[in-house]
Amino acid sequence: MVKTNPGRFFEDYSVGQVLQHAVPRTVTEGERGLYHALYPARHALYSSDEFARDCGLPESPLDDLAAFHLVFGKTVPDVSLNAVANLGYGEGRWLKPVYAGDTLRSVSEVIGVKQNSNGKTGVVWVRTRGLNQLDEVVIEYVRWVMVRKADVNAPAPETVVPELKKALTPQDLIVPEGLDFSNYDFALAGEAHRWGDYEIGEKIDHVDGVTVEEAEHMLATRLWQNTAKVHFDLTFRPEGRLIYGGHVISMARTLSFNGLANAQMIVGLNGGAHANPCFAGDTIKAWSEVLDKAETGVPGVGAIRLRLVATKGGDPFELENDEGRYLPDVLLDLDYWALMPQ
Amino acid sequence: MVKTNPGRFFEDYSVGQVLQHAVPRTVTEGERGLYHALYPARHALYSSDEFARDCGLPESPLDDLAAFHLVFGKTVPDVSLNAVANLGYGEGRWLKPVYAGDTLRSVSEVIGVKQNSNGKTGVVWVRTRGLNQLDEVVIEYVRWVMVRKADVNAPAPETVVPELKKALTPQDLIVPEGLDFSNYDFALAGEAHRWGDYEIGEKIDHVDGVTVEEAEHMLATRLWQNTAKVHFDLTFRPEGRLIYGGHVISMARTLSFNGLANAQMIVGLNGGAHANPCFAGDTIKAWSEVLDKAETGVPGVGAIRLRLVATKGGDPFELENDEGRYLPDVLLDLDYWALMPQ
Amino acid sequence: MVKTNPGRFFEDYSVGQVLQHAVPRTVTEGERGLYHALYPARHALYSSDEFARDCGLPESPLDDLAAFHLVFGKTVPDVSLNAVANLGYGEGRWLKPVYAGDTLRSVSEVIGVKQNSNGKTGVVWVRTRGLNQLDEVVIEYVRWVMVRKADVNAPAPETVVPELKKALTPQDLIVPEGLDFSNYDFALAGEAHRWGDYEIGEKIDHVDGVTVEEAEHMLATRLWQNTAKVHFDLTFRPEGRLIYGGHVISMARTLSFNGLANAQMIVGLNGGAHANPCFAGDTIKAWSEVLDKAETGVPGVGAIRLRLVATKGGDPFELENDEGRYLPDVLLDLDYWALMPQ
Repeated sequence: MVKTNPGRFFEDYSVGQVLQHAVPRTVTEGERGLYHALYPARHALYSSDEFARDCGLPESPLDDLAAFHLVFGKTVPDVSLNAVANLGYGEGRWLKPVYAGDTLRSVSEVIGVKQNSNGKTGVVWVRTRGLNQLDEVVIEYVRWVMVRKADVNAPAPETVVPELKKALTPQDLIVPEGLDFSNYDFALAGEAHRWGDYEIGEKIDHVDGVTVEEAEHMLATRLWQNTAKVHFDLTFRPEGRLIYGGHVISMARTLSFNGLANAQMIVGLNGGAHANPCFAGDTIKAWSEVLDKAETGVPGVGAIRLRLVATKGGDPFELENDEGRYLPDVLLDLDYWALMPQ
Repeated sequence: MVKTNPGRFFEDYSVGQVLQHAVPRTVTEGERGLYHALYPARHALYSSDEFARDCGLPESPLDDLAAFHLVFGKTVPDVSLNAVANLGYGEGRWLKPVYAGDTLRSVSEVIGVKQNSNGKTGVVWVRTRGLNQLDEVVIEYVRWVMVRKADVNAPAPETVVPELKKALTPQDLIVPEGLDFSNYDFALAGEAHRWGDYEIGEKIDHVDGVTVEEAEHMLATRLWQNTAKVHFDLTFRPEGRLIYGGHVISMARTLSFNGLANAQMIVGLNGGAHANPCFAGDTIKAWSEVLDKAETGVPGVGAIRLRLVATKGGDPFELENDEGRYLPDVLLDLDYWALMPQ
Repeated sequence: MVKTNPGRFFEDYSVGQVLQHAVPRTVTEGERGLYHALYPARHALYSSDEFARDCGLPESPLDDLAAFHLVFGKTVPDVSLNAVANLGYGEGRWLKPVYAGDTLRSVSEVIGVKQNSNGKTGVVWVRTRGLNQLDEVVIEYVRWVMVRKADVNAPAPETVVPELKKALTPQDLIVPEGLDFSNYDFALAGEAHRWGDYEIGEKIDHVDGVTVEEAEHMLATRLWQNTAKVHFDLTFRPEGRLIYGGHVISMARTLSFNGLANAQMIVGLNGGAHANPCFAGDTIKAWSEVLDKAETGVPGVGAIRLRLVATKGGDPFELENDEGRYLPDVLLDLDYWALMPQ
């Protein structure tokens, strides 16, 4: 009886299946401290309990992306251990802030399967929910991956491709209970520009860069209990350990402080692509484009939709070639909604 | 008057001596978070306060090996600063879980000395106890090291070689007060196999590997306040910084989650050898062998005795050559007891 | 409208200006744990809550230098983003210990400006104060930097050079409320020598060394939210990422445990120079010289003034060449006051 987890193959998934992922995790001040060591995180709401209280929250939450990585990491042994490629994200929502002391677990539902024409792989769509110790959903998102078949002769399942929103609407976004920007201190937050100062179409070069190291991305990826071999084992991937895509997301988001310091809370993930792999030695830089703006219905709290692009070279604002393919220096193209004081 | 600690030499030890080690240390959520960043730690009892409470504990303890490393680290300036070799461990017991907020200190008693025939070195045996702020012993173990003499003309002491158990008996093992696996959630723990599913003689390849980096092992070793020069100072050891043996133990133990996720708590250390040195760039993998199984007397809680082998190459399950010597790719051969739900 | 912070240039400073620095930061047990992972920190007062309570404090404070780095880090975007050189420190005082849960922010006042004769740069002096959530000053210090002019034709300001004390007097030093060394446990502290055992002029070689790695200094520097490009971005500084001077200070100070374990609390910074840059791969060692000793007025608590020198090679106690210039292997020359049991 084999005791180790071989992971699921394409033929092991069927629409409607519910996967209860191991292992629950209590987040503590340790994770909060580590997030500030691993990334140049400076958003004030997550840095200062006092600032958070002045904004109506009980204390600083765990960074929204840290919560995302923790929920995501649990799904790896069940969803992406045999994945060939991480194809996309969508319909991501942050429903409740996560605080030190909360315990998170993850549950996924298979919402789509489609065998590829080569008969050797297929695409699986899952909707994952992160729940806290009160069984409240704190995060949900859809992710689709290409997975190998174990048995190429296994019959193709009926194709189900879920209909996903291209982008969340402002009505989909949840403003955390109590959030109130009326006492917002722009000087302490590090940025004078507020929601009204950003224009749709505006692009911002975040200027700063970080040259990434093996030890750092492994520390981060382990912290989220993401165990995918490609990130850790150089004998498994002698051409170089692949950096977890979430490490690039967090690096780019925290670099975006310089120009978007008031885009405090991430509340929606419309989509995202890891355009090219990232390796130790690459220097990650970031730029953003304002894609949309909306009212949230909560006075003083605006929503801003941002494209966040991470690069490892090239000029800012370059994204695609003439055929619409990502340029080789583009690492990440992320589309998200954040909350900003008005 | 020399202010720096030169360490003890062989002639400075005598049987019956009691060494009060500096420096006490309060463990916090910071150490707990760091353990999850430094190692692929996923055992549910140590990951989730809720899971721990469902098992009758007040919250997740600090990882048993983290507690061991902290107790061990304090002994380095008094025991192994002038050690030539770390020869072995035995009779290790975990007597009480350690929780965030506890303060640990270490005390060792010299229980054996034996000068080597070359007259230049000798073997010293110490029994070390880790105590918490209530002066309760939380960990105890025996360790023996080869130590240089400062003065080769110092007379040889009377040889005392302590009699140590080859392995702890099940009666020696302490099940933490309140531990109760009757509500144990195997799905959340990440493994369906329970105590009854493992057979004596069974071997498990834990599959995953981690290529280790200088920054990581130094962060870990410092965290346990282990100050041995060989781990940190490349000018002291130009052929490469030696990775603290405990880093290899923790890496191998956490990799063993994949196949032994329910071997939750370490309660006994029967013996252990650091077969070959480990350096940055090595890829640590692990395999286990079930050596024994026993009832603990606590309903639902079984004890399992495991050999945990860490390697840096070669095929799994290879250990020794024809003459019974460790193969060059074997890093660690550890023999321990763990508690597992029945 | 440019959204990113271009930093201030020389002509942007004027005497009397007050800079409210972003971003406030709540320190937690996470920072405390990380400090012990990043540096070989062993001073008992900061390692054990029990030891701290036996010394009259409510628990272990955050390391004094960690508090300093946090206050300093906030000033970087406003003071040293366009700095050519960090010229010096002075009149630094630790006024209150910082505990987990405290929230720090920084405010600086410009106290001096002097344009250089080349007309392209100038020196700016600022007095920085770190405040906690109760608006109590916990740290204050003066720092001067050389800053570029954006417009070389901008008129030179009136020169104001502040008069700074060469060293704080014992009367300037604040002994934390309640500090009491009458129950001080020298065995647990790891060092038998007390205040009376150190002589003015005495030099101590701290023996141990640490070969530093890129990942480590970046983790540390980010933790203090210091965002200076030179520490992180290899494309910005292809000749090598410069290690934050504060990383060298903390490394040297923690190495000084071996010989100065009872120099528990830092209360004054008289001056300091980063003599030469430090890069990954350098092995940091340290030596100290006792510059002065004084009574504090609090029974049992002595003050000791120490020169702390960090090196990356050479022999201990070597500092300057015949012309009084720092030798190329000297990294740091720091002059501080610490409290020690009598």
